[in-house]
Amino acid sequence: MSKLLAVGTVAFDAIETPFGKTDKILGGSGTFVGLAASKFEVNIGIVSVVGGDFPQSYLDMMKENGINTDGVEIIKEGKTFFWSGKYHNDMNSRDTLITELNVLEHFKPIVPEAYKNSSIVMLGNLHPLTQASVLDQMSVKPKLVVLDTMNFWMDIALDDLHQVLKRIDVITINDDEARQLSGEYSLVNAAKKIHTMGPKYVVIKKGEHGALLFSEEGMFYAPALPLAEVFDPTGAGDTFAGGFCGYLAKTENISFENMKNAIIYGSNLASFCVEKFGTQRMEELKNGEVEERLRAFKELTQFDIVS
Amino acid sequence: MSKLLAVGTVAFDAIETPFGKTDKILGGSGTFVGLAASKFEVNIGIVSVVGGDFPQSYLDMMKENGINTDGVEIIKEGKTFFWSGKYHNDMNSRDTLITELNVLEHFKPIVPEAYKNSSIVMLGNLHPLTQASVLDQMSVKPKLVVLDTMNFWMDIALDDLHQVLKRIDVITINDDEARQLSGEYSLVNAAKKIHTMGPKYVVIKKGEHGALLFSEEGMFYAPALPLAEVFDPTGAGDTFAGGFCGYLAKTENISFENMKNAIIYGSNLASFCVEKFGTQRMEELKNGEVEERLRAFKELTQFDIVS
Repeated sequence: MSKLLAVGTVAFDAIETPFGKTDKILGGSGTFVGLAASKFEVNIGIVSVVGGDFPQSYLDMMKENGINTDGVEIIKEGKTFFWSGKYHNDMNSRDTLITELNVLEHFKPIVPEAYKNSSIVMLGNLHPLTQASVLDQMSVKPKLVVLDTMNFWMDIALDDLHQVLKRIDVITINDDEARQLSGEYSLVNAAKKIHTMGPKYVVIKKGEHGALLFSEEGMFYAPALPLAEVFDPTGAGDTFAGGFCGYLAKTENISFENMKNAIIYGSNLASFCVEKFGTQRMEELKNGEVEERLRAFKELTQFDIVS
Repeated sequence: MSKLLAVGTVAFDAIETPFGKTDKILGGSGTFVGLAASKFEVNIGIVSVVGGDFPQSYLDMMKENGINTDGVEIIKEGKTFFWSGKYHNDMNSRDTLITELNVLEHFKPIVPEAYKNSSIVMLGNLHPLTQASVLDQMSVKPKLVVLDTMNFWMDIALDDLHQVLKRIDVITINDDEARQLSGEYSLVNAAKKIHTMGPKYVVIKKGEHGALLFSEEGMFYAPALPLAEVFDPTGAGDTFAGGFCGYLAKTENISFENMKNAIIYGSNLASFCVEKFGTQRMEELKNGEVEERLRAFKELTQFDIVS
């Protein structure tokens, strides 16, 4: 079974959407990546940090889902990273209400021995130096390194970001961030420029408008599944990335053709994530549902033109 | 050969984009629909009105492209409809600088005898009563009526719009307009509500984010082809509609499955339209280029998952 290492946050979220609001619930990029990847037959380990206030039941739930949490450091005297946000009516934009870094502030990821030879590494949205420190710890060069980042790091740590970009294969960012990083408005041109910075593959996440995969071999587009109700978009991007990595790990095939399938699976899993608050939908998700939704994606996108 | 009747504007446009600006050039919804549909083997007639200032050379160009212009009334003492607009840097939004309705103000479309039995009718974005008057003139009930409209008519003539919606099969509108017409934010729910108003098919145009086709049989999504340069988006929506209708007319098949192909062809032709100012790219477009781009659409969207 392929090993997948995911480094990211494990956190508390408090979320408000037009459909309701939550108290502190389980969140974090590492959590969503792990839960999504766990839907595939892979050996998934997450590396993160939490405080003494983090419930054991959450860690137990992850373990029950087949996620190895040995790399989740628990700082007993510290508090878990906390984020609170409020989504606007269109669900595409949100305001951050509270960000308490807490134990995340001095997070130094330590990769467990057993995962130093992981074939796929997913570097969640963290400081580029933190991301680089994970790669430094690998005993074997991974087959594929996927990196997520955001405008914040472009603003405050652009040089460090450029350094780590040279060491990775796939970058996942949203459309505005692709434009900021490249200085190009057209996403085609943006991706071309980002290729020259290192990543052979550029995945541009466009939320409800789907995701684009660019490589020198071509481009591929996966729509988001149009849904009657989007309940809570939190974690959708991380779920997408987790599904992408999980599928690639399971199939042990990192060709461009197989990456197309991987972003369809990413989109597939993300379409579930938004149906309920937090991790709830991902926790209860059955494999049969994923396969059924795959059929929906095929109906949505596949055509058969006989000219 | 199937007959396709398109009613819309034939106009002068003056356009400013980040790439440059034009003097008065040929534009109008009827023009773009006609040019797009002319790429298929169909008998296409357009119904419109122009003033004495409209150059014969434009009408000649349309005829050379196989478009019947007998239904384009020329009011010698009048002036042609003129629209001027300026696109913002993102090309998704624009400001209207000038709208001179001129001869369009009292436009009463007269369908030529030869097109009163058209199998497909495309009602361009005009007052709902004007659109209805075209249907009143048909001697045979068309196999398919496609209607384009916009928020302006929802604001000032909603009752008339509801009346004509009962008589049509396909409505094409953008996402904001679908939300306004239905009062639903989710496009899935919006389409469901619009079905109850009459149209069995709802095509939601999302510009650079592609187009969605909704019917009771399912939904289908066609992306816009990501392009390195979008030069001028004017007419892209009408070109999309013209490609959609032209393909349906050529294949004489209005099944949901074939409509999927039709929106791919619409997206295909629209991707050319935006590559140059005004109608220029559509005028010079060769069939071979359309077929080549169809392959690009397939590469962009088709996948082959073996679970």
